[in-house]
Amino acid sequence: MNIQSTVFGICERAKKASRTLAAQSTQTKNKILSDIADALNANATAIIEANKQDLSKAAENGVPEHMLDRLMLNETRIKGICDSLRALIGLKDPIGSGERWTTPNGLEINCTRVPLGVVAIIYEARPNVTVDAAALCLKTGNATVLRGGKEAASTNSHLIEIMRSCIEKNGISPDVLGFIDASFGHEGADALMSARGLVDVLIPRGSKRLINAVVNNAKVPVIETGAGNCHLYVDESADIDMALKVAINAKCSRPAVCNAIETMLVHSAIAEEFLPQFAAAVAKNYTLEIRGDENTVKILPTAIRATESDFETEYDDYILAVKTVSSIDEAIDHINKYNTGHSEAIITNDVANAEKFRKYVDAAAVYVNASTRFTDGGEFGFGAEIGISTQKLHARGPMGLYALTTEKYLVNGNGQTR
Amino acid sequence: MNIQSTVFGICERAKKASRTLAAQSTQTKNKILSDIADALNANATAIIEANKQDLSKAAENGVPEHMLDRLMLNETRIKGICDSLRALIGLKDPIGSGERWTTPNGLEINCTRVPLGVVAIIYEARPNVTVDAAALCLKTGNATVLRGGKEAASTNSHLIEIMRSCIEKNGISPDVLGFIDASFGHEGADALMSARGLVDVLIPRGSKRLINAVVNNAKVPVIETGAGNCHLYVDESADIDMALKVAINAKCSRPAVCNAIETMLVHSAIAEEFLPQFAAAVAKNYTLEIRGDENTVKILPTAIRATESDFETEYDDYILAVKTVSSIDEAIDHINKYNTGHSEAIITNDVANAEKFRKYVDAAAVYVNASTRFTDGGEFGFGAEIGISTQKLHARGPMGLYALTTEKYLVNGNGQTR
Repeated sequence: MNIQSTVFGICERAKKASRTLAAQSTQTKNKILSDIADALNANATAIIEANKQDLSKAAENGVPEHMLDRLMLNETRIKGICDSLRALIGLKDPIGSGERWTTPNGLEINCTRVPLGVVAIIYEARPNVTVDAAALCLKTGNATVLRGGKEAASTNSHLIEIMRSCIEKNGISPDVLGFIDASFGHEGADALMSARGLVDVLIPRGSKRLINAVVNNAKVPVIETGAGNCHLYVDESADIDMALKVAINAKCSRPAVCNAIETMLVHSAIAEEFLPQFAAAVAKNYTLEIRGDENTVKILPTAIRATESDFETEYDDYILAVKTVSSIDEAIDHINKYNTGHSEAIITNDVANAEKFRKYVDAAAVYVNASTRFTDGGEFGFGAEIGISTQKLHARGPMGLYALTTEKYLVNGNGQTR
Repeated sequence: MNIQSTVFGICERAKKASRTLAAQSTQTKNKILSDIADALNANATAIIEANKQDLSKAAENGVPEHMLDRLMLNETRIKGICDSLRALIGLKDPIGSGERWTTPNGLEINCTRVPLGVVAIIYEARPNVTVDAAALCLKTGNATVLRGGKEAASTNSHLIEIMRSCIEKNGISPDVLGFIDASFGHEGADALMSARGLVDVLIPRGSKRLINAVVNNAKVPVIETGAGNCHLYVDESADIDMALKVAINAKCSRPAVCNAIETMLVHSAIAEEFLPQFAAAVAKNYTLEIRGDENTVKILPTAIRATESDFETEYDDYILAVKTVSSIDEAIDHINKYNTGHSEAIITNDVANAEKFRKYVDAAAVYVNASTRFTDGGEFGFGAEIGISTQKLHARGPMGLYALTTEKYLVNGNGQTR
């Protein structure tokens, strides 16, 4: 079996089937989504069973605890996926929307939203991505080709089969939802990355290593997503209680996700007051390893001394780098040097500092007095998200329906020439 | 002199200066544009003189006639550039615009437009690009790094100096308008393509060869523009007089530009009536070489027999490939196989065929009963354009101000955690 030609075949069939899907009404697309939610709900037990097999295999293979959390599906999470699907049904379909105007010479121009065509996703352990991605693409009339991680192989193949049968039941070719078997390994992913003319956009979701591999090797258009070296800056004027609450939430509520913080910057004027309180408060519920600069280690003797590479690292774990800074400018410079353009937060009571931080920090989402954990399509009100773009072109931040469309100028005339 | 470090230095200074430019009011940015229009107008004689030097050097070097047209500036064209600048002043500045909403937990989200940062352009002979590109970037608060063609070296350096002095006069560092000397050759362009972290987007404008070189070699984000293998399809139901007028305009009014057609498809049911009339009408004003399929050559004995490669070629010259087709579906399939996603037109009186063509032809602009020559930022009402995107991500078709911005989510809270 030639893996590349198998993958290209899946993409070609997806491309062909995408034309029929693109022509479907919003009503038909919503019906498919509703059927998928019903079917996932009805098959929850079987999905959880398949997921348990994946989990025990992953545990045997030494996958760390916090990664197992990404892989895990339980009834609550399946219900969450179904809720997202139903929320998506309620969202406005962007396809066909757009502005119309008439030029002075009488040309009628309609700039209309159209599907991208075939959207490919390479992702890692989280099986909820399988449904979220397929659903967002279905709603926007795009075909999808998914390549999930081998850890979730059994869960994913259950989810895909359920969705394909819902698509087929509504008279659409199931080829609009292609699936690259994780057992194809890197060769499968490489083939997807090189399918020029067949894949209209490739979105990597997962670790920095995965994303870099895709960005560097893909010959098809790519949207960079999800690399999250996020920071919280505790300003001199911060409300200490708020800072404690937000810092613990931003780091510890779910450290494996991309909108969790990796480094906390603390103004040196309040470091001696704040840091011991932080260490004590976090210790009540979590075992957090703190890697601090010289000043931090002086204040918190239990902290390990941080190196340069700590500030570059997305730990995805219960580890936090801490650095004291002598000004907000130093904090902004540090962030703009090390961040990945994802989410950055300041805790401050100083209006001018809040404004400076909002203006000069270069990231998709900039927070004043709130946790970075809110950078998420659902939290922002977009319904399920296809990823969080950390690039500046096409889409930035949580990508919902609109990010999965492009535009087309339809021009009507009566013989105009120039 | 190390060319790469010189180019990187220009980009670094542009990046640094871009932060100040990004913070300027619309009023200040418009004042710079107005000053540039005044200064170009006042220096028209000197610019035309410099352009004449470029033209005579290019003619000596055997640059073909239709390429000299792209290079040429006269009083009318300079007036056109100044008119575009003044129209640009009147356009709405997208920076700072955006939607605001409050989430159920009280987070205030503002999705605001911000500049991309540093926009680099690699282009060929047309010196109007120098002003158009710089002006659109200034209006949107972006720094620009331009790398023009060696044919226009003298004209461009005049234009750049005039613009830089207008920028400086308004208290902004002229570093926001960087210029890579064409004498640096490919090394200068290569350095620009590899300036990761310094160049936020690179836009190639020019021949297919140039665009392919940039797309294949750039390590910075790229927007593909301007490759224009455009088609006109004359349907069975076409108004013959309209088809004659539009076909001649789309091919011959300015064959060197990207929105001119390269291939005409003619329904075989009207080919015998239409083609001889077309050949006769076009011959009144132009010497057009026709390369036809078997059927066309039978009808027009003066036509040369076309090969497969003719249908792939952007001639940019008084050459037209002609193919007869037996149905609109054959026309659509031919277009979707050979086109570059730029502009496609149908001449028809059949409403269903018009709708089919609009729906299934995959291109940035699809015309019914009008010339492809209208695909242009000015004609569409966007003011001057930075290029015509032939890709689906970020921007498609003529790119005006909005295409030069990205978004940033500003989120205000009062201690929210998730």
